[in-house]
Amino acid sequence: MTVMSKRELSRQDRRRRILEAARHLVEQQGAAGLSMRALAASVGISAVTAYAIFGSKAGILRAIVEEDRARFAVMMDRAGVGHGIDSIFRLLTLACDLYRDKESFYRAVFQQYFSAGGVEIREILDPGRHRLWHGIVSGMADEGLFAIPVDPHLLTSQLENIFLAAHMRWCLRGTGVDLLEQEIGLGFAMLVKAIAIPEHQAYLGSLIERFGDRLLASAAALPVEGPGPPAGQG
Amino acid sequence: MTVMSKRELSRQDRRRRILEAARHLVEQQGAAGLSMRALAASVGISAVTAYAIFGSKAGILRAIVEEDRARFAVMMDRAGVGHGIDSIFRLLTLACDLYRDKESFYRAVFQQYFSAGGVEIREILDPGRHRLWHGIVSGMADEGLFAIPVDPHLLTSQLENIFLAAHMRWCLRGTGVDLLEQEIGLGFAMLVKAIAIPEHQAYLGSLIERFGDRLLASAAALPVEGPGPPAGQG
Repeated sequence: MTVMSKRELSRQDRRRRILEAARHLVEQQGAAGLSMRALAASVGISAVTAYAIFGSKAGILRAIVEEDRARFAVMMDRAGVGHGIDSIFRLLTLACDLYRDKESFYRAVFQQYFSAGGVEIREILDPGRHRLWHGIVSGMADEGLFAIPVDPHLLTSQLENIFLAAHMRWCLRGTGVDLLEQEIGLGFAMLVKAIAIPEHQAYLGSLIERFGDRLLASAAALPVEGPGPPAGQG
Repeated sequence: MTVMSKRELSRQDRRRRILEAARHLVEQQGAAGLSMRALAASVGISAVTAYAIFGSKAGILRAIVEEDRARFAVMMDRAGVGHGIDSIFRLLTLACDLYRDKESFYRAVFQQYFSAGGVEIREILDPGRHRLWHGIVSGMADEGLFAIPVDPHLLTSQLENIFLAAHMRWCLRGTGVDLLEQEIGLGFAMLVKAIAIPEHQAYLGSLIERFGDRLLASAAALPVEGPGPPAGQG
């Protein structure tokens, strides 16, 4: 082993330890609590070294998201997400399985996402997520699964609307991943059924009823009535 | 005129002036910039008097939302929102007309809604909005417009998911009310078409195509590709 490769090994090792510590810090204090100084101190290196490896706090968040993306791609390959009317539901289940594995970490990431200062994390998460889903949605369009032509970018944005708002409820209410998955599943099934070809209508209708039944079985899915008088502002 | 009624008139007048000043402060500085002290100073009364009338800052926000609710109810009556497959689209148009009238004020309210400290404004807006839309959605169900039974609370929550996420994009991107209305309109049309009875399928399909075409005509509706490498985390 040459000196260079030892150095490289040590760099890789520091990189891995910094990312592990960063995940831990985010889990404990939210993404806002992630400071280069605290991070460097927690792994026993100087802040200068941490900056040299990752460039910035955004660089660390980006590296974490990329680690997850790689892990997610392996999961997608294994599960064979790629095609058919079920592909977006398989994608949803995979994402939720990832959350189940590290729920407090992902909840902290999305809490930061929905905070006023969450610009960085949105800029890192959003384009990547849009590209991934757009790929799946374009594939479904190419397979001829849609009877009404909706631009794949626009359909992807609507799926993201359901996805994001359900995540906001998840963060605000502290409900579990199962409820998140069912709420998004119901919305996805409705959006896809609206434009699907006739042969998938009955199946998607049964998904809508199944997700609806599961949600109704959970009291947390129904709105908590506020104490105030009716205040209906659109 | 008795002394009592003069006093009452003066109280009503102070109340009106405080609410006007509050709307102005929110428009200028966001709902977070609304302090009882600043508000009282701006209308030349003591903070004690402002507290005596409204109880708290949340009381002032609630009073503003209730003023809007009353205004919105008059608009709804005039427009005859109440029934038919178009009722949620009429409701959407009315809400957007309200925004067009005072865009910077409503944008500030929703910016506060999506900030970490927006608990108060969410607690004031959400139950009232859910009740209003649930009323419309329940009415549509009672009219027999839906072929697939979805609990009206669950359908309302899905409509709110589209509504809220589109508002988040509106706040973050600074795009106009027209785009907001078309994005929500597309999502609403898709959600309703998924469960609508056969006689409304063609009409809702045409709405989906119309909203889609309008959105495609606006470059802002399409995603801005981020500069970073693909980072696809579900």
